[in-house]
Amino acid sequence: MTERKPRIGIIPGDPSGIGTELIAKLLSDGKVSNSNDVLLIGDRHVFELGQAQADKGYDLYPVDAWKDDWINVPSFAHFENPTINPEEIVIGEVTLASGTSAMANLNLGLDLLRQGIIEALVFAPFNKEALKLGGLRFQDELHHMKDYLNYKGYITELNTLDGFWTSRVTSHIALKEVSGAINETRIINSIDLINRTLKRSGVKRPRIAVAALNPHAGDGGNFGTEEIDVIAPSVKKAALKQIAVDGPWPSDTVFLKYKNNEVDAIVTMYHDQGQIALKLMGFDRGVTVLGGIPYPITTAAHGTAFDIAGLGIADIGALRNAFELAGTMVMNWEQANG
Amino acid sequence: MTERKPRIGIIPGDPSGIGTELIAKLLSDGKVSNSNDVLLIGDRHVFELGQAQADKGYDLYPVDAWKDDWINVPSFAHFENPTINPEEIVIGEVTLASGTSAMANLNLGLDLLRQGIIEALVFAPFNKEALKLGGLRFQDELHHMKDYLNYKGYITELNTLDGFWTSRVTSHIALKEVSGAINETRIINSIDLINRTLKRSGVKRPRIAVAALNPHAGDGGNFGTEEIDVIAPSVKKAALKQIAVDGPWPSDTVFLKYKNNEVDAIVTMYHDQGQIALKLMGFDRGVTVLGGIPYPITTAAHGTAFDIAGLGIADIGALRNAFELAGTMVMNWEQANG
Repeated sequence: MTERKPRIGIIPGDPSGIGTELIAKLLSDGKVSNSNDVLLIGDRHVFELGQAQADKGYDLYPVDAWKDDWINVPSFAHFENPTINPEEIVIGEVTLASGTSAMANLNLGLDLLRQGIIEALVFAPFNKEALKLGGLRFQDELHHMKDYLNYKGYITELNTLDGFWTSRVTSHIALKEVSGAINETRIINSIDLINRTLKRSGVKRPRIAVAALNPHAGDGGNFGTEEIDVIAPSVKKAALKQIAVDGPWPSDTVFLKYKNNEVDAIVTMYHDQGQIALKLMGFDRGVTVLGGIPYPITTAAHGTAFDIAGLGIADIGALRNAFELAGTMVMNWEQANG
Repeated sequence: MTERKPRIGIIPGDPSGIGTELIAKLLSDGKVSNSNDVLLIGDRHVFELGQAQADKGYDLYPVDAWKDDWINVPSFAHFENPTINPEEIVIGEVTLASGTSAMANLNLGLDLLRQGIIEALVFAPFNKEALKLGGLRFQDELHHMKDYLNYKGYITELNTLDGFWTSRVTSHIALKEVSGAINETRIINSIDLINRTLKRSGVKRPRIAVAALNPHAGDGGNFGTEEIDVIAPSVKKAALKQIAVDGPWPSDTVFLKYKNNEVDAIVTMYHDQGQIALKLMGFDRGVTVLGGIPYPITTAAHGTAFDIAGLGIADIGALRNAFELAGTMVMNWEQANG
């Protein structure tokens, strides 16, 4: 009997960006094929383009993932999905064709997840503008996945870096709307989701800190009362659910708790609260997890980097971390849910 | 003729905190007396208490700073100001007596600045609660100084660390009030003040970046319009005043500009935007400059640290940086204003 390996699907993301190159860099590392069963989903010529860009080769083995045993094949299993013509690819530009390609591969990846053909999905970066041209009807790919999979639970993007996680109760809204958008349900859902996701990534008892909204955590109500009225009661209720959570803590010192290894995760109230810290701590290596979606789906936290697309100089760090985390999540998923 | 040295006054801050100990650690370093003329302002027994706490000695030479030549004395000039009895000092606690002492020394320091007896003032940390018990009628010591000195210009706290500066357009207000509190006058004043202060600290042509308010700098108006309506026009006007300023930049990447040595200073829109970054980059060593006040006044960015007061373990880094910056500001002040 062979060792259990995670079955991970990879899609190229936006073919005009650095994703194709990054996949070639990822797969040319022998460790990947030793420890995982990888299914490449998309146009063969796109994967080959990435090999040329990265100047790194790997072999593709054509399979029909719906019918074939794609696990026991001599090289990387490749499930052809014709989404774009080679001459339609314009490196470094937002196009309808690249957005359409990205959406088509994403949807096939989700279909394969739903059928259990793959256990996790890793995508190279999307370009949001291109996705919208290509048919995205939601604010981002996370909300599309929720709709496409007909998932009814709470979802939120999670960011992780070197074992440290953040989530946010609000995301892409104006700062002045944040106060009105935080409430007990959302905060408890955020705490609950990050707790569950950390368990699914192998952390037995995640330690979670919740950030305050206002400077000095409101200074006892002097600079805002959301801490007293909403955040503290929410944290208390979440703690009653056997979650190791505390707060609210002033957001300018809460990240030092991670530096001091006192917490595994921080739930933030708004986008930049966590992003300022994460990007300072190592922007290039961060991973985004599509939190709440009932399958492990990960990607690099960075974007398509059109300014350096095709040049062969993109850093593989974040996508490699995303890939490794997807595998870790597969191996811990069921146990954590049980 | 001897070399020109800055004349710097030092006050103990809150005598119940770590300030007394820090001053002993600072002054026992021979470099301080070689490069500066130091006037200690306050109760002799408080300075002696610090020497005992730090287990570091230095000599005090009594002077009447109003009358005597305090520069050419054999050890550290000490201007007695009886503000508190030894038995009134309760280490690690907020008391009326310690707040009264801190206020009295601050006011004498400001008087000496105004009369040109000293050229800069460095204070060890205050405790805001104690200051309020001791007679502070304003939100903080900065606003007290403005009132006491009858200064009419724009003031704001500036934070600096390893040559990198931040200021904020709003400070101790609820996050939901930030949007309503930023306007063209305040943004331009903030840019102008940090530009002036950096010049006064010896930076010939400060490079300043302005942070956006909303995530992704509002994403072209999708998540808030303050960038379009207020911040961008303000930056443009400030740039017309021969200031090297640009922005608004997304606040989760703007701090990377400092890391890449592209800017000297960042003007932030709200308290935690800059504080999250500064504290992650090295909380213990930060310096606060009382920006706008027409004399160099600096302090450590940290507080009174009542939990470790009197133990002799407080880190001298930030107060030493504050002291050195005060001297640098004295030496560059007039030239920058000319």
